[in-house]
Amino acid sequence: MLQSKLFSKSTREFPKDEESLNAKLLIRAGFIRKISAGVYAYLPLGLRVLQNINNIVREEMNALGAEELLMPALIPKAIWEKSARWDVDIAYKIKDEGSSEYGLGWTHEEVITEIATHNIFSYSDLPRAVYQIQTKFRKEPRAKSGILRGREFTMKDLYSFHVSEGDLDVYYKKVIESYKKIFNRLSLNAKVVEAGGGLFTKNITHEFQVISDSGEDVIYFCDKCNFAQNKEIAKVVAGDNCPSCGKDKIGKTQAIEVANVFRQGTKYSEAFGLNIKDEGGKSSPVWHGSYGIGISRIMGTLVEVYNDARGIIWPEAVAPFRVHLIALGLKNQDKCQEIYNALQEKGIEVLYDERSEVSVGEKFADADLIGIPLRAVVSDKTGDKIEIKHRNSTEVKLVTLSELIKSF
Amino acid sequence: MLQSKLFSKSTREFPKDEESLNAKLLIRAGFIRKISAGVYAYLPLGLRVLQNINNIVREEMNALGAEELLMPALIPKAIWEKSARWDVDIAYKIKDEGSSEYGLGWTHEEVITEIATHNIFSYSDLPRAVYQIQTKFRKEPRAKSGILRGREFTMKDLYSFHVSEGDLDVYYKKVIESYKKIFNRLSLNAKVVEAGGGLFTKNITHEFQVISDSGEDVIYFCDKCNFAQNKEIAKVVAGDNCPSCGKDKIGKTQAIEVANVFRQGTKYSEAFGLNIKDEGGKSSPVWHGSYGIGISRIMGTLVEVYNDARGIIWPEAVAPFRVHLIALGLKNQDKCQEIYNALQEKGIEVLYDERSEVSVGEKFADADLIGIPLRAVVSDKTGDKIEIKHRNSTEVKLVTLSELIKSF
Repeated sequence: MLQSKLFSKSTREFPKDEESLNAKLLIRAGFIRKISAGVYAYLPLGLRVLQNINNIVREEMNALGAEELLMPALIPKAIWEKSARWDVDIAYKIKDEGSSEYGLGWTHEEVITEIATHNIFSYSDLPRAVYQIQTKFRKEPRAKSGILRGREFTMKDLYSFHVSEGDLDVYYKKVIESYKKIFNRLSLNAKVVEAGGGLFTKNITHEFQVISDSGEDVIYFCDKCNFAQNKEIAKVVAGDNCPSCGKDKIGKTQAIEVANVFRQGTKYSEAFGLNIKDEGGKSSPVWHGSYGIGISRIMGTLVEVYNDARGIIWPEAVAPFRVHLIALGLKNQDKCQEIYNALQEKGIEVLYDERSEVSVGEKFADADLIGIPLRAVVSDKTGDKIEIKHRNSTEVKLVTLSELIKSF
Repeated sequence: MLQSKLFSKSTREFPKDEESLNAKLLIRAGFIRKISAGVYAYLPLGLRVLQNINNIVREEMNALGAEELLMPALIPKAIWEKSARWDVDIAYKIKDEGSSEYGLGWTHEEVITEIATHNIFSYSDLPRAVYQIQTKFRKEPRAKSGILRGREFTMKDLYSFHVSEGDLDVYYKKVIESYKKIFNRLSLNAKVVEAGGGLFTKNITHEFQVISDSGEDVIYFCDKCNFAQNKEIAKVVAGDNCPSCGKDKIGKTQAIEVANVFRQGTKYSEAFGLNIKDEGGKSSPVWHGSYGIGISRIMGTLVEVYNDARGIIWPEAVAPFRVHLIALGLKNQDKCQEIYNALQEKGIEVLYDERSEVSVGEKFADADLIGIPLRAVVSDKTGDKIEIKHRNSTEVKLVTLSELIKSF
């Protein structure tokens, strides 16, 4: 991509109506644009990051044997009433004259269970797991955390159906392992934390929490073992001995919830009449789990975790491009064009700053702000080599084009 | 994909609450599920078709030099008011207590023009084109045409910005050529038809119309030349001599509008103050076009056009799988498994009906209903070969595995 052709422009000024660091940096660097509180457009740079996150999540969901589908946002009142979740504060309602009443989808347990009643009839149809990557709507009273807490946001939600509680438990643990793999691939150090079920379930659930001062959650945890609990349910305080291993004091921190997993049990199956017959013809409700990952929230979390005074530092796996190629001086543009073509031929995604009217200082400031992992500069000083620098390092190095290509 | 593991099941019964052929067939074959009037879930089979359509559209949009982005559905009242489109019947409104007022996005001229004011400042920033594949919401009073007219549906919308009317006109023609290529790849014979602008513009616009009895539009056209007009603006009636070439009588037909293109002129730029400065420093409003393709409507149109009494006949380019492999008889399952593995290794997507409890007749009926282009059967009669049959033909042929693989 040529930088002069990029739809979004970076800007020096911090947006005045944003409190959160993720929104400030993402808006300045041209990844997102605020449309109203908690509602953002993802500009081409931002959509590239979202799609990279989607691809990783999709690969791991497929590896779990789950099938992708797509459910609607317009969910009729009658469906919400079956599970007694029509009257929740979080749901946007449409009550237009001459229209049916809808609650915009803030989660999809109801819809998927309704669909499952047409596709699951017997124990031989189980287990089944389906997921979607879809837009959710939630009437958030405070929407001041940028894309960490949107009124409209992208979520991956997985739903599983099982013949028994035991089978659900086994799958629940598999999903936790899959989520660990996902956060590992995303370079996010996410703790598995015990929590309550909120509007979802009365069972103990698990959240994936990334330690960050911007987080709205408070967790208690032990550094020596896996013990971690959300403040909502914690029976410890900071400084207690760890009740699990006893080897360390309990710490307390703010954290961002990036995912959660729920054993719903038979609640929704009973509400929608999702029953199966066993081999003897006896009917019983299906066991059900639901598992969410906040896709756009992950993008915001990565910015909160990976940044410095100059801008964003994207991890390799989600960066909008892999190389930021910069031409300094008009007479180096031909050489740069060759490098650009060679990288693209090899399938290495590159943003090429070929702008001639922009100063060296501005080009470097833009590169640091946008945060592509590798900067590659061609100038009068680089001779027949290319000066490379990783965004998260100060070390510069001269390499040949073939060395650069080999490094991927 | 193993058919026994497929989330959706096909069913023999026609759904009772559907009038349209596309919904009847798609529900029976397990591609979609109705949630309420005009609102459907896309089950795994259906999402595969949608994603295949998306990929073709995305490739052609990128070839046009347009960049993909993603805009929100929650659009605040203030934005709609700037262009005087808050009070349209088609928009779902959210007027919840304690919430801001939003109109759910039924189109995005307003939002993209607002965003453009932060990214387009001078003639050197032009031309620019961006597109999204996104969910639209429209309060359709009649929602009886299945996925041809949804209250919630997937749309590709492209927006372009230009320095002059002449530049817009040139791009407008390029988009028409791009759309012709898209419909060609989708195996849809779409006529380019002159039309009015509806809620969008007062200029003459063009629609892409596919001839079908299920269409809600009426068009007049000439078979000898490109003359075609929507009834709304037509000054001809059926039987007139063609006013363009004079060589044939004008015909009349029902048709499905699958795409449209609008020269918006400077209407939205003036409403949002999207101005550029020319080289002399003089300010003038940007010229703007918008161009839509109904992604889910295309899926419905394909079903209306390509079907027979036994089910759907998907064109190769959008089919959910390329081969429907069917094992008849338990003792042929090992051989089928080998064929299944070999096809998958070659990247040929295959649905493998390995179900042992299902009769031959049911398997063949399912295959015809689902409509995958090639059926490949292994039975006691096929020896060391595979019996293949195209869905749109009655001819059967015995081929070896390597011949089958080579045919792709």
